[in-house]
Amino acid sequence: MQAEDQALVDAICGPGSKPGPEQRRAMAKAITLLESTRVDHRLRADDVLNAVLPKSGQSFRLGISGVPGVGKSTFIEALGLYLIDKGHRVAVLAIDPSSSVSGGSILGDKTRMEFLSVNEKAFIRPSPSSGNLGGVAEKTREAMLVAEAAGHDVVIVETVGVGQSETAVANMTDMFVLLQLPNAGDDLQAIKKGVMELADLVVINKVDLDPDAATRAQVQIMSSLRLFSMHGNPDHAHHDETLWHPKVMKLSALKAEGITEFWDTVTSFKNIQSKHGHLSDRRRQQAQSWMWERIEAGLKQNFRANSQVQKLLPELTAAVNNGTVAASVAARRLLDLMK
Amino acid sequence: MQAEDQALVDAICGPGSKPGPEQRRAMAKAITLLESTRVDHRLRADDVLNAVLPKSGQSFRLGISGVPGVGKSTFIEALGLYLIDKGHRVAVLAIDPSSSVSGGSILGDKTRMEFLSVNEKAFIRPSPSSGNLGGVAEKTREAMLVAEAAGHDVVIVETVGVGQSETAVANMTDMFVLLQLPNAGDDLQAIKKGVMELADLVVINKVDLDPDAATRAQVQIMSSLRLFSMHGNPDHAHHDETLWHPKVMKLSALKAEGITEFWDTVTSFKNIQSKHGHLSDRRRQQAQSWMWERIEAGLKQNFRANSQVQKLLPELTAAVNNGTVAASVAARRLLDLMK
Repeated sequence: MQAEDQALVDAICGPGSKPGPEQRRAMAKAITLLESTRVDHRLRADDVLNAVLPKSGQSFRLGISGVPGVGKSTFIEALGLYLIDKGHRVAVLAIDPSSSVSGGSILGDKTRMEFLSVNEKAFIRPSPSSGNLGGVAEKTREAMLVAEAAGHDVVIVETVGVGQSETAVANMTDMFVLLQLPNAGDDLQAIKKGVMELADLVVINKVDLDPDAATRAQVQIMSSLRLFSMHGNPDHAHHDETLWHPKVMKLSALKAEGITEFWDTVTSFKNIQSKHGHLSDRRRQQAQSWMWERIEAGLKQNFRANSQVQKLLPELTAAVNNGTVAASVAARRLLDLMK
Repeated sequence: MQAEDQALVDAICGPGSKPGPEQRRAMAKAITLLESTRVDHRLRADDVLNAVLPKSGQSFRLGISGVPGVGKSTFIEALGLYLIDKGHRVAVLAIDPSSSVSGGSILGDKTRMEFLSVNEKAFIRPSPSSGNLGGVAEKTREAMLVAEAAGHDVVIVETVGVGQSETAVANMTDMFVLLQLPNAGDDLQAIKKGVMELADLVVINKVDLDPDAATRAQVQIMSSLRLFSMHGNPDHAHHDETLWHPKVMKLSALKAEGITEFWDTVTSFKNIQSKHGHLSDRRRQQAQSWMWERIEAGLKQNFRANSQVQKLLPELTAAVNNGTVAASVAARRLLDLMK
């Protein structure tokens, strides 16, 4: 490893490392290296990653999603300050699929969390702005390892509900929380199919706006979650006590009401999951899926870069669209070119 | 093309082909060829597939799923006989992920549909029993093309609710129907996360068992479907008239009650989808996804067959599990072996 990279690793998690400006700068530099698309940077980044890895994994990883306007920033700020007050060190990372298009970022504007962003016990990193979702998500996963190695014991990964980003966040965190507005069922917060079912916990925020609507939403979402995942219904005979059953709770992040109950719920999730080994199982599965996801993405990239494939692909794609070649036949022809 | 294969194609969809025992035998032989794992058979099968392809695609493709005991066979038999009576020709294919393990098949026992199976206007083909789910699904997709070329204008693809088979069926059909029992919410019919949301239509079968429970289930499922896919709620301002909104209906297949209403609903789905181009869009997307799914499966197969990968994979898999190597780093190392 290069001397400057070793210095980064030492400042992040070496024997003499400690929270403070130096560690933060080293974290920022290491993450920038991870985000680089240069091949030499990537090789150095892998060395840095391997060096910090043994110190990582000690945090609780919390995924938070919700449509724009649901109050994610306000909630994360309130939660972050609450946790710091309890002695935790909090890192906030983001996956924003739109940032890969626009170059912008949901956390780019740090003033969104004006108190948390200046708190020295918090580390906030906006979404990487290059690469497709897979690339953005990979960099966020890696940044998470750096934040953990530096001693952050709660890592919050935030995403806005666009594309496949919720799945990506659910797949890299210990617990996935979906924020909702009190007016459940409104077009305003249309969520994509399948996202609700990823949630370990649904939080109805802004309960102060309309407490009755929030209660109705809570009942309705709870009933739907049970219907769509029936082993989760504690009223049923086959109810499994060792499994977590998704919950729905209400709070007001703006008024900082319900944050304690939220963290109590997270803690009880963590306890159930840890006690029965589900937490480590989930992490192992996530690591395996992550590896295979990257392998598959790499194989596909090599495939698309093959000059013969590039020649034949447009023609066969059109033929499959027109129905003149069966999709499976087209796939076999293209695969034969790789031999 | 070999003369015997040309004879198959002619008997299936040549100028002189006609419904009857000869066509059925040719269809069965062609599908057996498609299902073969021998390389020379596969090459011949691709020729056969390309030859029948221009005649395929003219059917309505209906996917039907539901847990064992929900009454799928009874329903499909009642529906099939109803459709034949109306002048349709019906093919019933199956995807049974368990058949790839046990060698058995959900449609293996043809007596399950005792009237339909002997009706000369019906073609019933059990699930292929070799290969992983991807392979089984691919063979069913190809068998569908053969059935269509032979003039079957309704193709029903049946699956039992196991593994990823519902997604596979939803991805190869124009409409995906989920059968449910009246006792919604019971453990008995626990459905996997995300499956309910694939449904274009939910059918509560066996309504005669408990009409009140069936009505309650209908209301509950309808409400959940709307909540989980909000653009589908016709009560809302952003309701899009050009889109189909999943429906929930009740019937009794055993008493052959509700079959007409079922087919009317299917027809209105078909009309909305055709009118706005969604049907052809869905098929084009399915064909493209199918091609890429097979390409990705093939690339992964080649990767796993690489001798250097085989040497290093167990070690890196273990290292990722133990947390000594980051998943992304392991993926890059393995991918480098393929260069």
